[in-house]
Amino acid sequence: MYKIAIAGAGAMGGRIGTYLKRNGEDVVLIDRWQDHIDAINKNGMEIQTETETYTVQIPAMQPEEVKEKFDLIILLTKAMHADDMLKSLKDIGAITESTAILSMMNGLGHADYLSQYVPKSQIFLAVTMWTAGLRGPGQLLLEGQGGIDFQRSDGQPDERTEKIAQVLDDAGLNAKISDDVFFSIWSKAAVNSVLNPLCTILDKTIGEFGAYENAREMITPILKELIAVANARGTNVVFETLLAKIEATYPNEAQGLHHPSMHQDYTNRRLTEIDYLNGQIAKYGDELGIETPANDLITHLIHQLEMKYA
Amino acid sequence: MYKIAIAGAGAMGGRIGTYLKRNGEDVVLIDRWQDHIDAINKNGMEIQTETETYTVQIPAMQPEEVKEKFDLIILLTKAMHADDMLKSLKDIGAITESTAILSMMNGLGHADYLSQYVPKSQIFLAVTMWTAGLRGPGQLLLEGQGGIDFQRSDGQPDERTEKIAQVLDDAGLNAKISDDVFFSIWSKAAVNSVLNPLCTILDKTIGEFGAYENAREMITPILKELIAVANARGTNVVFETLLAKIEATYPNEAQGLHHPSMHQDYTNRRLTEIDYLNGQIAKYGDELGIETPANDLITHLIHQLEMKYA
Repeated sequence: MYKIAIAGAGAMGGRIGTYLKRNGEDVVLIDRWQDHIDAINKNGMEIQTETETYTVQIPAMQPEEVKEKFDLIILLTKAMHADDMLKSLKDIGAITESTAILSMMNGLGHADYLSQYVPKSQIFLAVTMWTAGLRGPGQLLLEGQGGIDFQRSDGQPDERTEKIAQVLDDAGLNAKISDDVFFSIWSKAAVNSVLNPLCTILDKTIGEFGAYENAREMITPILKELIAVANARGTNVVFETLLAKIEATYPNEAQGLHHPSMHQDYTNRRLTEIDYLNGQIAKYGDELGIETPANDLITHLIHQLEMKYA
Repeated sequence: MYKIAIAGAGAMGGRIGTYLKRNGEDVVLIDRWQDHIDAINKNGMEIQTETETYTVQIPAMQPEEVKEKFDLIILLTKAMHADDMLKSLKDIGAITESTAILSMMNGLGHADYLSQYVPKSQIFLAVTMWTAGLRGPGQLLLEGQGGIDFQRSDGQPDERTEKIAQVLDDAGLNAKISDDVFFSIWSKAAVNSVLNPLCTILDKTIGEFGAYENAREMITPILKELIAVANARGTNVVFETLLAKIEATYPNEAQGLHHPSMHQDYTNRRLTEIDYLNGQIAKYGDELGIETPANDLITHLIHQLEMKYA
């Protein structure tokens, strides 16, 4: 039996986990939120879509309660909680020398610290276009369609990659093996590194941010630093493409009326993922001797804001 | 008779103007705030100090009401209102070919646009250590002591400089002819370019800002850009000195409990002086081919915030 853990079973983890479970996979949800765990174990995961409401029975638990060893751990915690989650799973013996870890987290730099737990050949990195919302403990709101692009973190193909693709795709998750997942990761991180912190610092929606007449001039240096770092690390993202991706979010019909997730984290007094976005760009820049003053300043501004809630 | 105008008669203009008037000078206050003008003309300027309360009778008016030509215009508007003020005074004939303009405004770049009105040899630049508060229309709160360092904007000595120093000093304003006023201007602008916008963006007091463990690392690039620009323009400000000046403001016994003036402007929904601080550093950087990404970003962030009140 192929044993799968969803480590970090919030909205996205709930979507991925219940899709797999409905397709007959052996899946457990692992999370730190006890009310959520209790609700799932008592009532199942209650799912509302545009057209139907249904319930998926699926076991949920704290990492310390795990009794199994996993073939695949799909990592969907907030980035800053991944290390704690994996350490707990490692300590309890749930990560073996054949466990694959598939990170679907946002942001940059995950492969580096994940390699403390398994070799890079067992680390897989994904970018997902699925979205999901949580209405309350054990209650998901699932709209729209998505997909998952992923690749072994060292870029090599192998049978395990094929197996994971099959498992995800069979469950309706539209999985595709990428031949350059870092391109997708950096592209997504570019959008997030601009809109997430700036809309948080300014307390603006994406549309309000984009309405500033010098928005393009404002974001250009941030993007150029990111591109210099990505290029030096071997990923050929291009300025015009990333700029267009960002500017495409501004209209109300796109994401203009929304605040990015970091704004929601901040206003809910949670720590942000800044260290896995602009902070990671700055860190890579230091390692590579590339100056990143705009990303440095943004990282400091968000950390200054986080202090208010410390 | 030596005719003096205080152009911009808020708290500081009120202090300078009433000191001169009490010493027998021929002074008029020129401002845009009609309630303030009316109160001064009706009741005189009412002044409260640590030890006494007194009233100074002094004429106040809108620039369009001026009937005189001035020997000396002391400019104390907010930086972004200086041009409108001088244009109005020029149009009405109050600025002649022998008028001296003494700018006591904060920030950078004033000499450049002032030279539309009089030659650089008639422009004088001051840095003042006086402070002043306004309790209401026509009501000043004056505490502490101060001084004024000033110099002809082209650095040359002349008799007019001596005359202005005498007039100010006789009125108890502790005036000193500087031999490098740009050093003082850039030093003051360094403190203001860091603390004003960052405390505004973060909605923090100066002490809260300084309490961030990486505050020094955060402000270093901003200062280094300013220093590169100042040095290229011939003013030899030094990193360690400016850093020390800024860090000296953090304790509660210094300015730690206060918000900088830009924060007050912003929370009162007024435009800020950002274009004469970080914005001017960025502009000089462009002219000189010096990159100023941190100051660019700060300027854009403040302009983005100002949009909320537009």
